[in-house]
Amino acid sequence: MKIYTKTGDKGTTSLIYGTRVSKNDKRVEAYGTCDETNSMIGLALSYLNGEYFSGKEEMQEIFHKIQTALFHVGAELATPSGKNVKWTLEEKDIEELEAKIDAWDAALPQLTNFILPGGHQAGAAMHVARTVARRAERQAVELGEEVNPLVLSYLNRLSDFLFVAARYVNMHLGSKEQTLHQN
Amino acid sequence: MKIYTKTGDKGTTSLIYGTRVSKNDKRVEAYGTCDETNSMIGLALSYLNGEYFSGKEEMQEIFHKIQTALFHVGAELATPSGKNVKWTLEEKDIEELEAKIDAWDAALPQLTNFILPGGHQAGAAMHVARTVARRAERQAVELGEEVNPLVLSYLNRLSDFLFVAARYVNMHLGSKEQTLHQN
Amino acid sequence: MKIYTKTGDKGTTSLIYGTRVSKNDKRVEAYGTCDETNSMIGLALSYLNGEYFSGKEEMQEIFHKIQTALFHVGAELATPSGKNVKWTLEEKDIEELEAKIDAWDAALPQLTNFILPGGHQAGAAMHVARTVARRAERQAVELGEEVNPLVLSYLNRLSDFLFVAARYVNMHLGSKEQTLHQN
Ligand code: B12
Ligand code: B12
Ligand code: B12
Ligand SMILES: C[C@H]1O[C@@H](n2cnc3c(N)ncnc32)[C@H](O)[C@@H]1O
Ligand SMILES: C[C@H]1O[C@@H](n2cnc3c(N)ncnc32)[C@H](O)[C@@H]1O
Ligand SMILES: C[C@H]1O[C@@H](n2cnc3c(N)ncnc32)[C@H](O)[C@@H]1O
Ligand SMILES: [Mg+2]
Ligand SMILES: [Mg+2]
Ligand SMILES: [Mg+2]
Repeated sequence: MKIYTKTGDKGTTSLIYGTRVSKNDKRVEAYGTCDETNSMIGLALSYLNGEYFSGKEEMQEIFHKIQTALFHVGAELATPSGKNVKWTLEEKDIEELEAKIDAWDAALPQLTNFILPGGHQAGAAMHVARTVARRAERQAVELGEEVNPLVLSYLNRLSDFLFVAARYVNMHLGSKEQTLHQN
Repeated sequence: MKIYTKTGDKGTTSLIYGTRVSKNDKRVEAYGTCDETNSMIGLALSYLNGEYFSGKEEMQEIFHKIQTALFHVGAELATPSGKNVKWTLEEKDIEELEAKIDAWDAALPQLTNFILPGGHQAGAAMHVARTVARRAERQAVELGEEVNPLVLSYLNRLSDFLFVAARYVNMHLGSKEQTLHQN
Repeated sequence: MKIYTKTGDKGTTSLIYGTRVSKNDKRVEAYGTCDETNSMIGLALSYLNGEYFSGKEEMQEIFHKIQTALFHVGAELATPSGKNVKWTLEEKDIEELEAKIDAWDAALPQLTNFILPGGHQAGAAMHVARTVARRAERQAVELGEEVNPLVLSYLNRLSDFLFVAARYVNMHLGSKEQTLHQN
């Protein structure tokens, strides 16, 4: 099968189960933005290649699970209301994020103010991914009652995870946190 | 002429031929997102500098044409309905994308499942560009009857091109494709 | 205090002063996109590490101020109408951008056509940041009368600043500007 089918050239596409919708449907918008979040995470991970720090493999492993879970989030969003979701998100996906947030946060200096997004390329791209995850969350919220509440919790926790992951990676790869400019 | 004119400080701007519109006009949204796609492609290309693989120059040449074509897409979107478009998109721009998709896809392992976006920085950034191109497509769809159908076909094919290009670059730069996490 | 409070898991959040709103509120959309702009600037800056050119420290200093100012823009957008804004944007924040645009532009070849976004990673990422800043501007415009006019001017100037900064960095880091493809 060819990657391109041209069936979507007139602005419509299909959800899981084949329901045709416009490409500007709220569901398409929401899972499209999960795909964007996932891709930005992929870019962040690309910067870990060639870098070494204790806990790096563990970090890669959890990111592997997150990238997979984002396809489950996508399946939740791409399944029309009332139909069975084939790839489901689980409560434990969220708990895994929380466990890592707690563990990493304990190793980081406590914050009482905003920090400037940036640092090592990997950390900086995680900050970007954080803001794209928040955009995906905003678009999932647009679906209102039609969205599985686990999707909203997952995306909400994901952006907090990405904040802590960015800080953690920056700490390990020697990038000092920058605070707001004083003048 | 200064880059900044301050004429847009109150939230309006002009299309080609000078028609004033709000900056949140659907056309501005759509060509603004083409500009974002173009810029993300520029970031992806920046990672090819210093890398070598057979076919790299050919890839850079087609990306040069794509970046140019995105200005033609932009001109289509920035021209008010009923006016003559000065920079037109051509059927052959789409055919060129298809030819490259076919050629590169033939060299790649066939897929029967999703792959995780990521890999070498260049491939990873092409995945991000792919998702931004899809966002641009969704916004062009918002224009409905007012958009040249070639624009929709071009953006649709462009995201498939970027998918295959990402895989192709990753194969050549030694990044193994990752599949969904099994647990 | 934990980073994650779970209070936003149902799709609402709070502005400054605690007003609860939906996460797809126009204000949240606008300051969320400022956060995305800020993060993309952070990624661009990460590529300056390890590079040397005359004026680099000055560039980092102004970007430090810009990243800070974006939190002031965020505070303007996150404060409900009629309430006192605690972090205010100043006319001089805009003037500083203009001064740098003028200084750098004078050192650059004059343009009579579009250039392709790209170049050195730092310059290429500044082009991406430029397009995200323009998206933030479009969303701030959505707020209509409710937005401080300085916010619109700042975001408008910021994208012009990022254009000139991208060119300036590319000139210094040896990346030739590419023009549209001729064929
Ligand atoms: C929703 C969806 C997406 C979503 C996300 C999916 C998610 N769960 O989050 C997003 C937006 C990310 C997406 C992206 C893409 N998708 Co898609 N997607 C779908 C859709 C509508 C449902 C897939 C799904 O989630 N099913 C739920 C699972 C549980 O059910 P399933 O039926 O077993 O799904 C399997 C296959 O659909 C898929 N699969 C099978 N063969 C192939 C081949 C390819 C190349 C890919 C990528 C996937 C794929 O693997 C799934 C798991 O086994 C299908 C069409 C359809 N109606 O089925 C297209 C579909 C799978 N997608 C397709 C394509 C081309 C893509 C993109 C390459 C588009 C692009 N240019 O970006 C990317 C690839 C992304 C990647 N990283 O690999 C094509 C594949 C065509 C082919 N066989 O070559 C399909 C069939 C649509 C079509 N054109 O008809 N997609
Ligand atoms: C649509 C548009 C865009 C679109 C895309 C265009 C597209 N086709 O996809 C997008 C959003 C990408 C864009 C971006 C920018 N644009 Co613009 N754009 C326009 C607009 C409305 C039409 C241009 C067009 O496509 N014309 C169609 C072609 C066929 O007709 P043309 O008249 O021959 O167009 C030529 C010139 O307009 C342009 N040109 C001439 N002098 C200069 C100088 C500069 C600095 C640039 C960038 C372009 C430029 O080159 C074109 C080809 O020859 C014009 C204003 C207008 N009403 O004309 C502004 C205009 C060209 N843009 C302008 C600016 C400042 C920019 C940005 C720097 C803004 C920013 N901060 O991001 C970027 C630069 C991007 C880049 N890579 O170079 C200014 C240039 C001012 C100047 N002379 O210095 C203009 C004149 C608007 C204004 N302020 O009055 N733009
Ligand atoms: C608007 C806002 C944002 C905006 C931008 C702010 C702006 N001005 O542009 C954006 C979207 C960028 C943002 C992002 C984040 N935010 Co916020 N944000 C707020 C909010 C609503 C107002 C903050 C503000 O601007 N106040 C204006 C200033 C002048 O008043 P202030 O009261 O003195 O503000 C101070 C504190 O609020 C803040 N602060 C104090 N302790 C902490 C701890 C942390 C971890 C952080 C990040 C900030 C922070 O520092 C400010 C300056 O001194 C507050 C909640 C609230 N209602 O106050 C949450 C709040 C500060 N944010 C919070 C969080 C968790 C985050 C993020 C980590 C979320 C994420 N996963 O991305 C990021 C961090 C970004 C960063 N770079 O550091 C939490 C902090 C919880 C904690 N104490 O650990 C708060 C309290 C919301 C909550 N959950 O209850 N935020
Ligand atoms: C830290 C602050 O970020 C805001 N906030 C909460 N969720 C989102 C989101 N998805 N996108 C943008 N901003 C958000 C709230 O105002 C919160 O208090
Ligand atoms: C691969 C799947 O991606 C979805 N799809 C098609 N076009 C877009 C777009 N512009 N943005 C987001 N998702 C899209 C459809 O559901 C398709 O089947
Ligand atoms: C250079 C051109 O970019 C367009 N323009 C002006 N402001 C924005 C924005 N925030 N987003 C996208 N496009 C914009 C106008 O058409 C201007 O003439
Ligand atoms: Mg949250
Ligand atoms: Mg498509
Ligand atoms: Mg402007």
